Amino acid sequence: MGQITTIALDVMSGDCGPRSRICAAQDALTRHPHLHLVLVGDSRFIREHLSREVSDRVTVVHAAQTVSMDERPSRALRSKQDSSMWLAVEQVAMGMSQACVSAGNTGALMAMGRHLLKTFPGIDRPALVGQVPTSAGGTLLLDLGANVDCSADLLFQFAVLGSLLKSEVYDVVNPSVGLLNVGEEDIKGSETVRLAQQLIESHESLNYAGFIEGDDLYSGRVDVVVCDGFAGNVALKASEAAVRMVAHKLAAGVGLNSWQKVLLKLLKPLFKPMAASIDPGRYNGAMLLGLQGIVVKSHGAADARQFGFAIDQAVRAVEHNAVHRINERLEELL
Amino acid sequence: MGQITTIALDVMSGDCGPRSRICAAQDALTRHPHLHLVLVGDSRFIREHLSREVSDRVTVVHAAQTVSMDERPSRALRSKQDSSMWLAVEQVAMGMSQACVSAGNTGALMAMGRHLLKTFPGIDRPALVGQVPTSAGGTLLLDLGANVDCSADLLFQFAVLGSLLKSEVYDVVNPSVGLLNVGEEDIKGSETVRLAQQLIESHESLNYAGFIEGDDLYSGRVDVVVCDGFAGNVALKASEAAVRMVAHKLAAGVGLNSWQKVLLKLLKPLFKPMAASIDPGRYNGAMLLGLQGIVVKSHGAADARQFGFAIDQAVRAVEHNAVHRINERLEELL
Repeated sequence: MGQITTIALDVMSGDCGPRSRICAAQDALTRHPHLHLVLVGDSRFIREHLSREVSDRVTVVHAAQTVSMDERPSRALRSKQDSSMWLAVEQVAMGMSQACVSAGNTGALMAMGRHLLKTFPGIDRPALVGQVPTSAGGTLLLDLGANVDCSADLLFQFAVLGSLLKSEVYDVVNPSVGLLNVGEEDIKGSETVRLAQQLIESHESLNYAGFIEGDDLYSGRVDVVVCDGFAGNVALKASEAAVRMVAHKLAAGVGLNSWQKVLLKLLKPLFKPMAASIDPGRYNGAMLLGLQGIVVKSHGAADARQFGFAIDQAVRAVEHNAVHRINERLEELL
Repeated sequence: MGQITTIALDVMSGDCGPRSRICAAQDALTRHPHLHLVLVGDSRFIREHLSREVSDRVTVVHAAQTVSMDERPSRALRSKQDSSMWLAVEQVAMGMSQACVSAGNTGALMAMGRHLLKTFPGIDRPALVGQVPTSAGGTLLLDLGANVDCSADLLFQFAVLGSLLKSEVYDVVNPSVGLLNVGEEDIKGSETVRLAQQLIESHESLNYAGFIEGDDLYSGRVDVVVCDGFAGNVALKASEAAVRMVAHKLAAGVGLNSWQKVLLKLLKPLFKPMAASIDPGRYNGAMLLGLQGIVVKSHGAADARQFGFAIDQAVRAVEHNAVHRINERLEELL
């Protein structure tokens, strides 16, 4: 490749503090030899904590403000134009960076993304999309919470966007799309979901696979699952929590007698690679899909390693030229 | 105790066939010495497969029809009055049984429950409620899919019903109630959820704990979680699926090298009790709460052991005199 990928990181937003984001940035530079990073935040703090070795691969942009996690998006849009979040997104809008990553307030990121980057023609609102693990590799799930209420038309747009992302960035030919519902029968679900099914079904370029239930989110039965942001957010967070609870129970040896517990403790280091394979943090990073620019949202509580996975997603999207390719295909489709 | 508990089982509905339900019935009679069962279905088949030893603790009621899993509830209500589901619910309505259990079509069960048993005064529609496991014992989650769209007022009624069930049947004093949302801040979520919060908050007898997110479903932070049936159904099914995927990965030793895998295989029998402790099937059985009678819905695909857990829930509700106690408390509250 040889081409430099430039990504802006909002190092101030989220629950973990800028030091953790700077660590993640340094690790990402090691992983990706053609990466250049723009670190947006308190420039003095960043310069103090940045290792000298990477300083020629980093640009620092000073931001005087931070968007808080509970700030109203409309307010942030008006009064936080000097924030690390705004300036990181603006990097992409000005063409200085090819993507940005923030662990901040989702609503504010969405508002700034829409304001500074605009959506693709034909797309009303961007969707927050993430990949969930399946035995078959992974399923894209959208929306994950950026759009609490979705019209049938918006769900249809998400189906198109998800399908394009899966084919253009994840290299799946003719990806299958399922619509999340409380049953697989056509009579089930809300009016909106049934109407969305009609729209998706009748669009010949989509490989529609019908209604799917929560059971099938991790089965790999479909490549893309579409739902409103309330259901998607709840499904994702609940399943991550369930997995964490199970991991905790297993680590504690719930159900075992005392000597089995001792044995488990002794053997734990041996089976450590398994724990990593089921860690939900590995799938951190959701893209605001539908914007004319790449914006990746990290979990607010993500640690340095997890924030790194979000950076990796941004790198992947840039390397696949996601925005250009999705835009081109959208023009054909809509 | 000494008192006989009589429970009607719809042995025909669901995906597993009547033989599995009859097995579950026999096991339940062994577990509960004061239980009498009314088996509703194809009487010839039931008599052929029922063991002689339990025949004096079983009444067989013949049903000529079965409600299929994809039948429209309104149609089932009109044309399936000779079905195993209808007759099982009717057992409760006539006072012949104190509860009924069915693994059939949720919508049809809901329709028949409402028609034959009626809801409590002040309750518009019953909620499907189940217990999810937490480190602290368990959290009640409602609605699980019987009510796809819920008004704020209905969510408020569910908060009251869930709180009463938790205190009267699960013996939790002043149970805390959370409202499921996509964020914990008051500005988050749909109009309906925010309006429901106002109603729940202003009712002094409810111990309202605020918005909770999917993350907190398994943390035990609250005793009762209220949401619409779409979100609840998706959250429950997705998390069960995620846990099954993890269990599958662990059993296969994903991430391990070959000799670690061999070791894992050798040790598996030793750690079997752990697998049981994380099996979602242990929590099978959801109650249609709000009806003037106990109706328990089992997962359609539940096997004999899992169907048994649903029967146990019905037994528990009867032994706690759930309907009478909730009705009495409701009269004070609403």
